[in-house]
Amino acid sequence: MPQALKMTEAEIIDHAGLDSAVFLRIYTLGLKIFVPITILALLILIPVNVSSGTLFFLRKELVMSDIDKLSISNVRPQSIRFFIHIALEYAFTTWICFMLYKEYDHVASMRLRFLASKRRRAEQFTVVVRNVPHVSGRSAVDSVEQFFQTNHPNTYLCQQAVYNANTFAKLVRKRDRLQNWLDYNQLKFERHPDKRPTQNKGFLGLWGERVDSIEYYKQQMKHLEKNMALERQKILKDSKSILPVSFVSFNSRWGAAVCAQTQQSKNPTLWLTNWAPEPRDIYWRNLAIPFMSLTVRKLIISVSVFALVFFYMIPIAFVQSLANLEGLEKVAPFLRPVIELKFIKSFLQGFLPGLALKIFLYILPTVLIIMSKIEGFIAHSTLERRAAAKYYYFMLVNVFLGSIIAGTAFEQLDAFLHQSPTQIPRTIGVSIPMKATFFITYIMIDGWAGIAGEILRLKPLIIFHLKNMFLVKTERDKERAMDPGSVDFPETLPSLQLYFLLGIVYAVVTPILLPFVLVFFAFAYLVYRHQIINVYNQKYESAAAFWPHVHSRIIASLLISQLLLLGLLSTKKAANSTPLLVILPILTLYFHKYCKSRFEPAFRKYPLEEAMAKDLNDRATESELNLKAYLADAYLHPIFRSFEEEELVEVKVEKNKPQPASDRTSELSSPSPPHQANHPSSPPHYVYHPSSPPQHVYDPSSPSHYAYHYENDIYHPPSPPHYAYHYENES
Amino acid sequence: MPQALKMTEAEIIDHAGLDSAVFLRIYTLGLKIFVPITILALLILIPVNVSSGTLFFLRKELVMSDIDKLSISNVRPQSIRFFIHIALEYAFTTWICFMLYKEYDHVASMRLRFLASKRRRAEQFTVVVRNVPHVSGRSAVDSVEQFFQTNHPNTYLCQQAVYNANTFAKLVRKRDRLQNWLDYNQLKFERHPDKRPTQNKGFLGLWGERVDSIEYYKQQMKHLEKNMALERQKILKDSKSILPVSFVSFNSRWGAAVCAQTQQSKNPTLWLTNWAPEPRDIYWRNLAIPFMSLTVRKLIISVSVFALVFFYMIPIAFVQSLANLEGLEKVAPFLRPVIELKFIKSFLQGFLPGLALKIFLYILPTVLIIMSKIEGFIAHSTLERRAAAKYYYFMLVNVFLGSIIAGTAFEQLDAFLHQSPTQIPRTIGVSIPMKATFFITYIMIDGWAGIAGEILRLKPLIIFHLKNMFLVKTERDKERAMDPGSVDFPETLPSLQLYFLLGIVYAVVTPILLPFVLVFFAFAYLVYRHQIINVYNQKYESAAAFWPHVHSRIIASLLISQLLLLGLLSTKKAANSTPLLVILPILTLYFHKYCKSRFEPAFRKYPLEEAMAKDLNDRATESELNLKAYLADAYLHPIFRSFEEEELVEVKVEKNKPQPASDRTSELSSPSPPHQANHPSSPPHYVYHPSSPPQHVYDPSSPSHYAYHYENDIYHPPSPPHYAYHYENES
Repeated sequence: MPQALKMTEAEIIDHAGLDSAVFLRIYTLGLKIFVPITILALLILIPVNVSSGTLFFLRKELVMSDIDKLSISNVRPQSIRFFIHIALEYAFTTWICFMLYKEYDHVASMRLRFLASKRRRAEQFTVVVRNVPHVSGRSAVDSVEQFFQTNHPNTYLCQQAVYNANTFAKLVRKRDRLQNWLDYNQLKFERHPDKRPTQNKGFLGLWGERVDSIEYYKQQMKHLEKNMALERQKILKDSKSILPVSFVSFNSRWGAAVCAQTQQSKNPTLWLTNWAPEPRDIYWRNLAIPFMSLTVRKLIISVSVFALVFFYMIPIAFVQSLANLEGLEKVAPFLRPVIELKFIKSFLQGFLPGLALKIFLYILPTVLIIMSKIEGFIAHSTLERRAAAKYYYFMLVNVFLGSIIAGTAFEQLDAFLHQSPTQIPRTIGVSIPMKATFFITYIMIDGWAGIAGEILRLKPLIIFHLKNMFLVKTERDKERAMDPGSVDFPETLPSLQLYFLLGIVYAVVTPILLPFVLVFFAFAYLVYRHQIINVYNQKYESAAAFWPHVHSRIIASLLISQLLLLGLLSTKKAANSTPLLVILPILTLYFHKYCKSRFEPAFRKYPLEEAMAKDLNDRATESELNLKAYLADAYLHPIFRSFEEEELVEVKVEKNKPQPASDRTSELSSPSPPHQANHPSSPPHYVYHPSSPPQHVYDPSSPSHYAYHYENDIYHPPSPPHYAYHYENES
Repeated sequence: MPQALKMTEAEIIDHAGLDSAVFLRIYTLGLKIFVPITILALLILIPVNVSSGTLFFLRKELVMSDIDKLSISNVRPQSIRFFIHIALEYAFTTWICFMLYKEYDHVASMRLRFLASKRRRAEQFTVVVRNVPHVSGRSAVDSVEQFFQTNHPNTYLCQQAVYNANTFAKLVRKRDRLQNWLDYNQLKFERHPDKRPTQNKGFLGLWGERVDSIEYYKQQMKHLEKNMALERQKILKDSKSILPVSFVSFNSRWGAAVCAQTQQSKNPTLWLTNWAPEPRDIYWRNLAIPFMSLTVRKLIISVSVFALVFFYMIPIAFVQSLANLEGLEKVAPFLRPVIELKFIKSFLQGFLPGLALKIFLYILPTVLIIMSKIEGFIAHSTLERRAAAKYYYFMLVNVFLGSIIAGTAFEQLDAFLHQSPTQIPRTIGVSIPMKATFFITYIMIDGWAGIAGEILRLKPLIIFHLKNMFLVKTERDKERAMDPGSVDFPETLPSLQLYFLLGIVYAVVTPILLPFVLVFFAFAYLVYRHQIINVYNQKYESAAAFWPHVHSRIIASLLISQLLLLGLLSTKKAANSTPLLVILPILTLYFHKYCKSRFEPAFRKYPLEEAMAKDLNDRATESELNLKAYLADAYLHPIFRSFEEEELVEVKVEKNKPQPASDRTSELSSPSPPHQANHPSSPPHYVYHPSSPPQHVYDPSSPSHYAYHYENDIYHPPSPPHYAYHYENES
């Protein structure tokens, strides 16, 4: 832990990537925002609220907690003191906007500096082209070649066609599974050479003819290898396996930047160009989705997210109504004697009703990731960002609003539809101060305890032991189960944003909540700093692409707090303050708009000035570089690395004159996939090198784990990326 | 008129530009949409409604017009017949979307074809660069030069610096005015040689010393010429008169397309690049506005538009309260004997109250144009489009909603804020059928009569005669006053869209309104076709850039009609139909989104494929073209054409080696500003060639005319553009 505190930001970027470093900055931003606000609020508002003392003599019969005496509820209606609250809301908004602006500025320049300092990387020269139109009698490869040679004659370099290897990938995963079982049985046999392991042939080994396990798996493997060979041939020979997608590379960053930012064709749904994600960030499966299908998918998913956010309680309530003891006894009468035991009965009665909800909340992030996958994004980083956005909506409606207003989100929605727009902030605003105690508890249970769990890595520990018990059969399995993973953005970012929301909303209303938020940020900062430095492995690098979302959600929190204060004050008969508070959201929105136009392009586009400067620098330092060879198989589907070398030539960028692998590694300092570069001599017919990280855990009992790892781990580079600042210092 | 009907669309494009041709297509689109809808609605809905006959026996005491018997009001609540209305709403929506899709497709391809067929034009090679950063010790010209030579080394050709000539332009306009007075007085003297014209020196010639007019104006002119010479020197010598804006030209369309679509600099608020508008379309004054000021201006204008739409009645009511007879008598007691005359009194009583409103509505388009100018758009076409958008909001709120719900827009806003969102469509929906008679009258008075007025050109005729009476002094003035102008987009487009809205909303509710809309579209089509072919002069060519607005506003009309039908049916207790009608807006919105992504880029960007094809074609046909000379002064502020030739060299693109004018004209078939090309030998110190159209009418009595023509007419090319299809056929 102490070493973790000593590392500078540059070292963290070097060690764990910019994503992690900027992720930590969210916590320091929280501290920077809330430390002055807390001091100011406690010093000014608490005395103002306490001395008002309405609650001391008014309605003594009601149970008012001491916290309420410190809150805005304690101020008499129509009191002049509300102007202090309004003044502070202005001060806080100004302070938060100021900090947000500074931070956005800093992160944007960090990102640009990071991108500029990056050594040559395949994605800087490459653009992903989707929706290549089908011309009869000509392959997609030829179309791409011709189109870019015509329209980017000076910069076009080469292309990497994308093959539909989804079926083949499935076979490879199956082969792996079989290999694993084979290893397990061989291990068993070695330990007990007297007894050859046997098993049933049928479903899950539960019934069917009893056979020798080792023989059985060897035979199965053989059969599968044959299938794989067929599939491999099909991919190589069948022109239909070439997708209308291509990774097009240019001879300069400038050329790629131009192609990525411009419209190529008359028909704007064809020849869609975009920056290619890092090779390890690509979600290969979605490259095969056609454009028309994408728009339909987007519609369906947005409707489903809406349904999920507002109606998720309906199926859960249904399951809960089934999962009571009477229902259980009816369905399974043979369990009655067990259930009727007093100890078990009381346990079940306490446990069952919440079970469905708990399972749901546990698998929710996974469900959201799957939804994002269905939406068709082609990079893991985008998938996680989109899942985080969905999770945030869920938390906002169900945790924040759901806790303030009683009833399910669906009931709220119904109520809001039948209320006037001005009534809604009032309804919520009025209950805001009363819920302060609840949210303080929430921060302690969910925030503090969650962070403590994170440092002990409770959740992974439990999962690891569960896996160890039921699934781990070989050493390879064990290694795979111990993979620490990386920062869980889809879950962490939204809950982080929720704490910002709570802090900002309660800053003026019940300032006593602020120290709890502060403690959370400080504690979480230390813990995540430690985890990032010592535990996590980086999965991909998006160069802080999530920052615009963080920024805009803090702005949204500001707007929510302003509206709720407006509602709250209007119930306090401080109507003369309304104009003052109406101006604030307009100014905030305007600030957001300005920040968006000022900084967001740094996260979406790559300025030509930068590209050109980097190109010129490159040309000056190493003029005789063979860029084509460098890009040769950067964007090859990782599955192809299992192909024979002769076959590989077929699918690589440079069809005609492949360079020998040794040549390539010596010439280039860091070809993008370290996996392939480090093992150029690995046996060509088997990709999953024993020293590489575990590739796949088939775990039918945990749907969460299944869906998440199942698809992410097709290609997983083993070493943490050390290429960033590091190399730049050398050159 | 008969010839007007014979012209094909291609001929119209050739004769009056694509804008006019596509403008006519809006009317044919209206016909295509409403003819089948009218037939279907009349055949199906009228029998259904009439036979329901609720109104015959129910509440006979109420005065129900016959039109109501044909409308949906006549159907019994909870009737099964409402499903016929819903089915027709679905059918109409599908039909309208289908027609919109086809039309958008057609217009987009027309636009691309038009752009492709255009002969070489300066704006195809030119990008306007705004916010050139100020580097101390270096002029903006040098910065631009260096930046583009570095970042677009292969394509950068030359630049045209922009000089702040606003003061000089003002002096030129003043000189013109004096020249006009001088001519007038000389003419007067020629007619009556016995009497030299004299005038007073003071304000408006009303008082002051009496002097000889000819001498007086000559002297004034002399003085002004001296000032102009000083100002001219200042522009040429002072580096501050060079604005941080530049027209940067490239050696190929491809290069310009790349530069216009990409981000140039790290800081996205610097080096902003955009396609340059046509030279004649540029609104020079706004080029001097800095970027930061632009964002503030946008905020202010959007707040003002909101205020204008919702609160415009407040000042008018105030003026009206003043402008009654008692008030008048109080202010001007000497008028009492006149006012008390019975005839005059009744006239004033009928006339005064509406006067303020009438004046307001008359000057509204001008006010909106001025607002758009303050917003800082740099092209006349954009200004007009934005003014049209603002006018549409005004019409939607004050004409459509204002007529349906009693009360001012402000009162409506207040009511809506205190109603639930589901209540609003009900409130409006319920009154929709009752207002059918009013809107039929409105269509007849405003639509039919307006069109009739248009063919007679009543408004221009009145203005012309007013001007003739008070202002026209010389032949030049007369010519100027007779300028027919062009299609008045800011006024015509919004009212057109209002008729679409009325047709779509009433299609299901009161189908008897449809024939009136149909007649309007047919009549207006014929009239505008005639006007465009025989009367109007084209002012600029935006290649149908307004179409996306037309499209999205028809979609908005569809959404409004669906919501109102939903509200109407819910008051008819047909609640079981709600789910059916909720799906419809979602599908419509989705259709809109699809159209946007499918077609809008054709209106915003210029595909590289197109640019490259045109470049290659160019290179093949004329290889030895001197593009630099061609672009030499295309983007020169028109005011500079009055400079001495030697001075002109200073400000032109090619500072060092200017080509002689004769050389240029012979080499190029149609350099962009015909004005300059046709009169290369015109006296260099006086730009306003007598044969060119009138440049400026200073008309203080008509604020509308003042603001509109005052700034538009700085540069006005005389000949209708014949370059479009025409040249393509030759090559």
